[in-house]
Order: sequence, then structure tokens, then C-alpha cells
Amino acid sequence: MTEHDPGDLDDLARRCAERMYADDVASRRLDIAIDAIASGRATVRMTVRDDMVNGHGTCHGGYVFLLADSAFAFACNTHDEVTVAAGVDIVFVAAAQRGDVLIADAVERTRYGRSGLCDVTIRRADGELIAEFRGRSRALGRRLLS
Amino acid sequence: MTEHDPGDLDDLARRCAERMYADDVASRRLDIAIDAIASGRATVRMTVRDDMVNGHGTCHGGYVFLLADSAFAFACNTHDEVTVAAGVDIVFVAAAQRGDVLIADAVERTRYGRSGLCDVTIRRADGELIAEFRGRSRALGRRLLS
Amino acid sequence: MTEHDPGDLDDLARRCAERMYADDVASRRLDIAIDAIASGRATVRMTVRDDMVNGHGTCHGGYVFLLADSAFAFACNTHDEVTVAAGVDIVFVAAAQRGDVLIADAVERTRYGRSGLCDVTIRRADGELIAEFRGRSRALGRRLLS
Amino acid sequence: MTEHDPGDLDDLARRCAERMYADDVASRRLDIAIDAIASGRATVRMTVRDDMVNGHGTCHGGYVFLLADSAFAFACNTHDEVTVAAGVDIVFVAAAQRGDVLIADAVERTRYGRSGLCDVTIRRADGELIAEFRGRSRALGRRLLS
Repeated sequence: MTEHDPGDLDDLARRCAERMYADDVASRRLDIAIDAIASGRATVRMTVRDDMVNGHGTCHGGYVFLLADSAFAFACNTHDEVTVAAGVDIVFVAAAQRGDVLIADAVERTRYGRSGLCDVTIRRADGELIAEFRGRSRALGRRLLS
Repeated sequence: MTEHDPGDLDDLARRCAERMYADDVASRRLDIAIDAIASGRATVRMTVRDDMVNGHGTCHGGYVFLLADSAFAFACNTHDEVTVAAGVDIVFVAAAQRGDVLIADAVERTRYGRSGLCDVTIRRADGELIAEFRGRSRALGRRLLS
Repeated sequence: MTEHDPGDLDDLARRCAERMYADDVASRRLDIAIDAIASGRATVRMTVRDDMVNGHGTCHGGYVFLLADSAFAFACNTHDEVTVAAGVDIVFVAAAQRGDVLIADAVERTRYGRSGLCDVTIRRADGELIAEFRGRSRALGRRLLS
Repeated sequence: MTEHDPGDLDDLARRCAERMYADDVASRRLDIAIDAIASGRATVRMTVRDDMVNGHGTCHGGYVFLLADSAFAFACNTHDEVTVAAGVDIVFVAAAQRGDVLIADAVERTRYGRSGLCDVTIRRADGELIAEFRGRSRALGRRLLS
């Protein structure tokens, strides 16, 4: 196994995220922006648009999940190994409203074999907690770059 | 408690779903269509569009979740009581591709107090299993239909 | 792949369960009994003993989980392939009391690659729902019976 | 709402844990010991005994869960409000063996209304990660200490 210093790892992380984001039509069409990337970490944001509202007049839980899932994907693909979601547990704490800016902060909690766990906290820009997401990842055993 | 015959309950279920769907901009903008509604049950479908593709070239897991979450919302709001998602566990079994028609079939498993559990199976139109979703619901204690 | 008729599969299932149970000191010490085994299915039972009570005076959730986890293990090891738990989501519906007879009924929902999903419903002997458990399994790629 | 300084809260936490532990026959019979208690936090430990081994020759997942569930119960009952488990997601990372000393460290992640989320990490005494547990709690609205 090659040794990396943390700076190299964060640089690798950024290049992986750029590659992912370039191909991620879904995230770009929703104007999901990447705020920060580091090895095993990603922070992304999205504004709740009029077309994201559900039958109760609040942000559809699917879009809250989607934002967190993008953060999860960026974070667990920072090691230059194609990694996909195996499953997720999400807890909805408070409803988001149209116009809210949502920030999802993803941190890998552990990796073991090809599996991993990644916690994503979704907050409104003012800090109000919206949801807690725990993603289970699975690496496919091939490189993401080149 | 008022007694209902099953036909009345299914009629109530349909009226609740119509009300939810009318207000559910998110589901309508994604062309999510309701195939069937009954008391505690809902089947919906969606075609994976070009703008739903993620950084791995497959359908973003957020859209698979969103479809299932809509089915969940329709199913657990069929009792004329405003009911929201408290949390979800989703397991991704196979990736969906652009152009796939996805069908989410939601069935309430149990209700206890104001809580409920609803299982949603997401399949491709040819029957291939895509994901299994288990939603935890919470009724807010007010009527959906005025 | 060898073809099996369902009767052969259920016979294989029973032989696997016997092997598992013989080695499962934990289940035997708690007097967990196997009621039924079939391919991908298992039903087990346990009586809540005085030493299973927690700080709220009801059956410790750990023992409810343990019973369901045993049913899960028996069900997903019925295919003569060593299979372990990767994770579980459990929902507690009602508290069990000292003296209650609990019955856990496990049914595999799907298998894909080396992964599987198994739903376990835990009821009191009178039918009252106690908990719903969804186990995620992982086969290790070796035979259970030599 | 009464203001408390952190020292008072930790003292309250300890008194709640003592009350819980005194009544928790299940934890005491398994020689689960409390290492540390603070407001919203608990650390407990248990040695894997011969009678905790399952059909694969490793510690039954039910006992790993039970230890974590005890830590969860102590942590979320530190506020002098009777609080029970509504559900849990657990991920098994590595198998524990007979004789292993397991340490479960529980930290409340958030509380909202009567609901809460509590993360419990289970490690072997040498630091090896065994499992990650996320518990969902529900307060019943009555005092724990009379």
C-alpha cells in the first residue's frame, strides 16, 4: 500500500469530486454546489425550489435525501475507488421549506474491507437540524480516475 | 370510532390521494403517476430521465428514494389523517438506468398509536428488483380532507 | 448450478438449521426453540424470563433483538452457505413483559449476489405485534455442511 | 424551564443511571458494568462469555446489540425523563470472540420534541471496531426519579 500525506489525500479527494461532479447531471440540474471536499469528507448545498414541494407544502423528503446522498457519494468516492450506496437510514427531524438553503455535511465514520459507513447531517443555513442520514457504501474494486 | 366497509375505505383512500397529488408539485414535475390506491396501499411509477443520472452514469439514488417516498406518502395518508415521514431505511439492490420505468409499490405493514411502518418495493417494469424501502410514519393528529 | 426440487430444499434447510442450532450455545441457553424451518424461512420462540427484564421493568430490547436475530440466522443459513448478519434495522412496537412467549417469524425477502434481506416479525403468542426486524445478510462463500 | 449548570446535569445523569441500573436485571446478570455517565452519555462494558456464542462460533449479534442497547438506555435516560427505544439501526463491522471485552460508548446526537437519536460505538478493549448502532428514542413524558 502506498503511503500518502494528508495534503496529497485531500488533493486526490478534490480531483475525484471534480470527476464525479462533472458527470453528475442530477446534482448539477438541482444546482447542488460543492462547498468543501477533503479525504472522506464533503459538504454540499442546495436551495429548496418551488418544484421541490410535496403534498404537505414542505420540501419533499426525496430532495432532502437526494442532497445528502450526493454529499455521501462525493465523500466516499474521495479515495479514487468507485464506491456506490448499498443502503441508507435517514431520520427526518424538521421539515424544510421552499426557499431554505440546505447544507449537507458528510463524514466517513469507518471503512472495513469494501464496506463503509458515512454520516451526513443536513442543516438549514441558520444551523437548524433537518435530518440525519447514515449511508452504507460498497467499493466496486476499480479506479475512479483514469 | 366510525365503522367503515372496505369499499368506503378505498373510496376515502382515493380522495386523500387526489388531494395529496394535487398539491404535490415535486411528484408531478417528475411525471410520477399513480397507478393504484387502496386503504394503506399505493402504487406509483416514474421513468428515469436524462437529468436523473448521477456521477456513475446510473439513476441517482435520490430519485429512486423520492419515487418510493411518494408511494409511502400516498399510502400512509389514505386514512384522512395528515401523516409525515419520521424516517426510512432503504436498501439498494440494483442500479436503475436512464429510460427505465420504475414502479414503487407501498403497503402499510402496521400502525400503532400515531406511528406506522410502510414497506415499499421498487421494481423496473420488467420485474427486476431495484430497492427495498421501509418507511416509518407519524400522524400529526389532524384531518387531511377538510 | 444444481437444480433442486422444493422438498429437497426444505430438507437441506432443516439439516442446516440442525447444524447451526447444535453449535448455537447462546440460543440454547435462552431456551430458544425452533418451531419451523423451510428454505429461506425460520420460526423460533422464547419465553421472557425474570433475568431478561430491563430498568423499565419490561423485557430488555436486547433479548427481543436476540430472538429475532436467531430466527434471521437460521433462515438465511438454510442454503448451505455460511451467512452472517451485516446489519439490522429494528422497530419496537410494544413492550414485552416477563412471562410472555415471543415468536419470531423470519422470511427472506430477496437475495442478490452475496447479499440478502430478511424480514422478521416478532409477536407475542396471542398475536400482539412486538417488533419488526429487517436483517441484511452477507454470505461468506463457503459451505455450512461439510 | 429550569436552568442547570453542566455539573448539576452530570450529577442528575448519574442518579438516573443508578436508578436504571438498580432495576436492570438483564444488564446485571450479564455483568454489564457502567464505566462512565454524563448528561446524554454513557459508557458500558461486558466480557463475551461462553454462553454468548452463536452457531458460527462467534459472539451472538444479539449480545453485541444488547450491550449497545443498555448504553443507549443509560444515555437517553440521563435527563430524568423515562425514555424508551423506538428503533435501532445496527451495522456489524467485525465479529467478537469469546473472552473479548466489549466497550459500548453512547452519545446522544440530537433531541427534538419527545424524540432523540443516540449513536453507540462498540469496540473491543484494544480499540478494534465491532459495530455501530444508531438508536431512536422516545420520551414518555414522565419523570424517572420520583
